[in-house]
Amino acid sequence: MTKSIKVFAPATVANVTCGFDILGFSVDHPGDEVIVKLSNSNTTMRKKVNNTDLSRSISFQNIKISKITGDNKDLPLDPAQNTAAVAIAHFLKHIKSNAHVEIILHKKMPLGSGLGSSAASAAAAVVAINELLGANLSRTQLVPFAMEGERAACGVAHADNVAPSILGGFVLIRSYTPLDIIKIPTPNDLYCSIIHPHVIVATKDARNIIKSTVPLTNAITQSGNVAGLIAGLMLPDYSLIARSMHDVIIEPVRAILFPGFLEVKQIALASGALGVGISGSGPSIFALSKNKITANKVANVMKNAFHRLGIDNETFVSKINQVGAKILE
Amino acid sequence: MTKSIKVFAPATVANVTCGFDILGFSVDHPGDEVIVKLSNSNTTMRKKVNNTDLSRSISFQNIKISKITGDNKDLPLDPAQNTAAVAIAHFLKHIKSNAHVEIILHKKMPLGSGLGSSAASAAAAVVAINELLGANLSRTQLVPFAMEGERAACGVAHADNVAPSILGGFVLIRSYTPLDIIKIPTPNDLYCSIIHPHVIVATKDARNIIKSTVPLTNAITQSGNVAGLIAGLMLPDYSLIARSMHDVIIEPVRAILFPGFLEVKQIALASGALGVGISGSGPSIFALSKNKITANKVANVMKNAFHRLGIDNETFVSKINQVGAKILE
Repeated sequence: MTKSIKVFAPATVANVTCGFDILGFSVDHPGDEVIVKLSNSNTTMRKKVNNTDLSRSISFQNIKISKITGDNKDLPLDPAQNTAAVAIAHFLKHIKSNAHVEIILHKKMPLGSGLGSSAASAAAAVVAINELLGANLSRTQLVPFAMEGERAACGVAHADNVAPSILGGFVLIRSYTPLDIIKIPTPNDLYCSIIHPHVIVATKDARNIIKSTVPLTNAITQSGNVAGLIAGLMLPDYSLIARSMHDVIIEPVRAILFPGFLEVKQIALASGALGVGISGSGPSIFALSKNKITANKVANVMKNAFHRLGIDNETFVSKINQVGAKILE
Repeated sequence: MTKSIKVFAPATVANVTCGFDILGFSVDHPGDEVIVKLSNSNTTMRKKVNNTDLSRSISFQNIKISKITGDNKDLPLDPAQNTAAVAIAHFLKHIKSNAHVEIILHKKMPLGSGLGSSAASAAAAVVAINELLGANLSRTQLVPFAMEGERAACGVAHADNVAPSILGGFVLIRSYTPLDIIKIPTPNDLYCSIIHPHVIVATKDARNIIKSTVPLTNAITQSGNVAGLIAGLMLPDYSLIARSMHDVIIEPVRAILFPGFLEVKQIALASGALGVGISGSGPSIFALSKNKITANKVANVMKNAFHRLGIDNETFVSKINQVGAKILE
């Protein structure tokens, strides 16, 4: 049995315009690398479990975070507060393992950027521990443990970042009760341009600004666009994707939190993007385009627009990632 | 040029569970037959139009409804009040024709049943006049004229019955401004069972009972189900179709208008239906099933359930119709 494993899990875009809380997708890069090691010889799952033997509550006694790089020292080494460690703790509880685990996190993407940084670490962690212990859970079965990592990181056990980070591709979270995750086929030439402007917006503010009721007419418009986006991705029909990428519920209220968003969106659309939206709870902005040339052009015009606004930024261009978390070694 | 034409247009189910106002589909039967005749020799389109020659307002001077059968004398012979005549009048205005038209309507489906009776007549009428005058408008281009028939019949120019009646299949109305109609591929083995209980519910009541705002959480749930239904139809994945056919916004408030609905729904689901909903504004109920045997069984148990409630009814079982309005002779 392998004693150490390194897994890459990709960044993700959640709240894909009209698909607030239900649609997310992953990109090829950036992403996080997580190394998980079994730190003693007691690495087998207990095949026969005495229920009184393992506490029903989550234990972090056997889990140690030995190192985090790339986080500018922002992330806690306390496993109870760390998304990867929490995800692994829930996984170990589920398979009733008392393995001793050491975690090394290499954060290779911006934190607090709206690109699913905490989700990527949790996703990589659960894929790693599943492989390391030979537990053979399916990728979909791993999602709930990574969601517990999300709960630790931001208070809500969202799946719309961890699911695409684990599974790859464009993912629909149809329902949370019960959890129902569907991978949506996407066309080969679909590319994503992401810009991360270096501004800070608290996820909490982005959430609190949302109204708790919506006009029925807006709910219907949003449903029509979601249906159009799914159909556009599956047919595929790029024009339909473009016509459907409109959010009439969340973006109109959230946009004011993000200086430059509406201007940059306008410029990206004028440069050929199919659609543009706030990634997750922001501040990153993503655009979908039909091919790599357009996606690169869109990234450039967004970069220049933020520079004109005096806002530092970084950009990423990638295909829609189809493989999700990947075992590196 | 043909001087007379007969067209069949099928009944339709709109408000397909989670797809309120955006999803409709047509069935093979029942449906309406409409005969349209050119009643004088002046049948050509005016190629050169003098704008002062034809009024901008709709004219019914050249349109006559000579006969309506199967309507129990409920429908007006006055063309200005008749869905088929109004649709034709708007079509003639659009192509700037002063043709003299005679219409015969054979209503072969129940009126006021929630199965798109007025839509079927309008759909058949526009397909007929388009063919008769050789105007060569596409099926999608014909939809707006039939929508004007709907406006005359019920006050609102809905497309979710006329579009599937004209085009066939499962149709998404993504948007009204601009009108954006997308035909969604469906699996071959998808069947519909319809029951029309002989009770009267005013469409107006069915509309007035709906709340004008919805909780955001319900809007998100509904969006997830719409996305799941579209993906389920296109993959195809019958289980996903079944899991997605839930309406958390309209059905919970409308169900009280339809005695027996919840009981009949329960029985149909227990008999193998994928999903069950109110057809249009009711009182008809539809169920989707995976094959004809199940669809027949579902129709029977629904029939028996309404009989036990002492409510007369009629049932129809059909594949999802794929051709829409059909020229008969």
